[in-house]
Amino acid sequence: MSSVSRGSQRPTRSDYKYWKSYQTRWSDNDQYSHVNNAVYYHLIDSIINTFLAERCGCLPSLPSPSDSSISVTETLSPIGLVVSSHCDFFSPLSFPETIELGLRVTRLGTSSVTYEVGFFSSVDSKALKAVGGYTHVFVDRNDRRPVKAMGRHLRRGLESLADEGLDRSSRLDRDIAKL
Amino acid sequence: MSSVSRGSQRPTRSDYKYWKSYQTRWSDNDQYSHVNNAVYYHLIDSIINTFLAERCGCLPSLPSPSDSSISVTETLSPIGLVVSSHCDFFSPLSFPETIELGLRVTRLGTSSVTYEVGFFSSVDSKALKAVGGYTHVFVDRNDRRPVKAMGRHLRRGLESLADEGLDRSSRLDRDIAKL
Amino acid sequence: MSSVSRGSQRPTRSDYKYWKSYQTRWSDNDQYSHVNNAVYYHLIDSIINTFLAERCGCLPSLPSPSDSSISVTETLSPIGLVVSSHCDFFSPLSFPETIELGLRVTRLGTSSVTYEVGFFSSVDSKALKAVGGYTHVFVDRNDRRPVKAMGRHLRRGLESLADEGLDRSSRLDRDIAKL
Amino acid sequence: MSSVSRGSQRPTRSDYKYWKSYQTRWSDNDQYSHVNNAVYYHLIDSIINTFLAERCGCLPSLPSPSDSSISVTETLSPIGLVVSSHCDFFSPLSFPETIELGLRVTRLGTSSVTYEVGFFSSVDSKALKAVGGYTHVFVDRNDRRPVKAMGRHLRRGLESLADEGLDRSSRLDRDIAKL
Repeated sequence: MSSVSRGSQRPTRSDYKYWKSYQTRWSDNDQYSHVNNAVYYHLIDSIINTFLAERCGCLPSLPSPSDSSISVTETLSPIGLVVSSHCDFFSPLSFPETIELGLRVTRLGTSSVTYEVGFFSSVDSKALKAVGGYTHVFVDRNDRRPVKAMGRHLRRGLESLADEGLDRSSRLDRDIAKL
Repeated sequence: MSSVSRGSQRPTRSDYKYWKSYQTRWSDNDQYSHVNNAVYYHLIDSIINTFLAERCGCLPSLPSPSDSSISVTETLSPIGLVVSSHCDFFSPLSFPETIELGLRVTRLGTSSVTYEVGFFSSVDSKALKAVGGYTHVFVDRNDRRPVKAMGRHLRRGLESLADEGLDRSSRLDRDIAKL
Repeated sequence: MSSVSRGSQRPTRSDYKYWKSYQTRWSDNDQYSHVNNAVYYHLIDSIINTFLAERCGCLPSLPSPSDSSISVTETLSPIGLVVSSHCDFFSPLSFPETIELGLRVTRLGTSSVTYEVGFFSSVDSKALKAVGGYTHVFVDRNDRRPVKAMGRHLRRGLESLADEGLDRSSRLDRDIAKL
Repeated sequence: MSSVSRGSQRPTRSDYKYWKSYQTRWSDNDQYSHVNNAVYYHLIDSIINTFLAERCGCLPSLPSPSDSSISVTETLSPIGLVVSSHCDFFSPLSFPETIELGLRVTRLGTSSVTYEVGFFSSVDSKALKAVGGYTHVFVDRNDRRPVKAMGRHLRRGLESLADEGLDRSSRLDRDIAKL
């Protein structure tokens, strides 16, 4: 993770494949009049879960039994648990500006994925303000144990966000198996 | 306040004069998979403070001394303290939908103002989901005592959000004077 | 609700029957260095849901099927949806102080209840800083329709927080039936 | 950071020198009925800023000019800006349990410091639930440029949280100088 953010080259807008804009909120600013560091993680969570719902059929909540528009496959989609997260902050953001978030996948395992999110200001559109991300392990919704492999629909969605030189090693998956 | 929301007629979109859209966030939903009741107040705060910054010259934070683009008048703008708030909830909202907020002023005193905010879904655009609001008393930024009267720029901005039959009584101001 | 907070007599510590202390958090303060108004509603939610879990058998989340320590009755407990909330703010609170919350029940219907929460500072222990509250309608966990009547365990818990001169009118219940 | 949390030995309670307990809040749990990952950062912020206020004379907000109990030295204390943060999650926490946080300093530079926070449950008191932390760079409150060196009072406070084998290298400080 350090390599991404502390290295000689910071990512640019073109590195990210999926975008969402978030209106900042009054309470995002802390006493120092800048968006608080923890708020970046709320936004990382938001763009990732929106992507999973929109493009990968991962509904965050179980639909009511009477809602026949939802197929059984979707109902049984696994949920992603966060095992590790990080963020590097380069320059501040502040309410009431709008924040533009870009998302990509930097590692894709059998049952886990690592996302990276770039934060850009809508005012100064080229400047990267922060880079963060986290690793999701997909678990069964009921017993909360890691699934053997994520489903095809989910995998295809995540692959669409991945770089060409994506790390497909299963090293992290082996670590997670020990959990 | 009860009259607005429990009365025979609920407000409609045309009653509101200033609009903002807010992307919901993952953590807005609570365990019951709906936007949590407290989050509505974060959004009420956000549209009101955005309006005050954009249209009334009320900057939330003191600019740094070197920022010469800010006039002295703006620097000294009073701040609004919330003395009372309320919300009525008619039907739920849920991440990841976008929420559309409309704002109007329902009472304008000499040094205080009462706002009302209507919550609409971007999906089902006519249905009013909730109505809330609060009363701001404008106080001096340093000693936090109510100002005698809000400035002209601020008053003109707030008047632009008011209904024609606005309550301009100073009853609330008298109450506040006793604080 | 106005009567409680704007009337001639504000409630005192002895009016509240259940207490919890909450450590404030850095992000509770907004740019004006006081606990933000919306945060009071997060705390109201917290003391009420803690009471419901501890004393009334209302578990917020469905236990996993394998957890045999949970009886079927508890599993099927209804959930409380907030239909209306309000708060009056008398003087500010600020991170890092600890806030002491007192809870009582001011109205108890067949399937709904109105709570009131008093906010006290641990520093200046007698001064009432704010009074707020909300109304819960108990609904079935699955279809989200109001239950005909809350269960006996829940009702007994809520009665233990009620004043002697409690309003047991079913007026609100009739309103809610129309929802 | 990986070394701390992914290494063969996880920290234990005795590694931490300063402790605070935090009551969880209803909205800390997300739809999956566990404390949301971003909330851990709110708590990290809270214990660190409480320590800085209580033990290091770092007041988060400027006192009003009339408050003569505050010395000029304290008034001019620098503020800490977060440049990087991370967290590893081992097992979940859930409302309404109380969380116990332990704090230590793992790196202390001339004008910056890296903190580590361990999360423990009050129920299962030995189990480390998560480890996170961040790096503060101390900047001048007005121009927001890094200070040349933190003051003596602040340094002494931070040293009291440091391990014996503390990394006092100024490598990070050099990195930050380039900001």
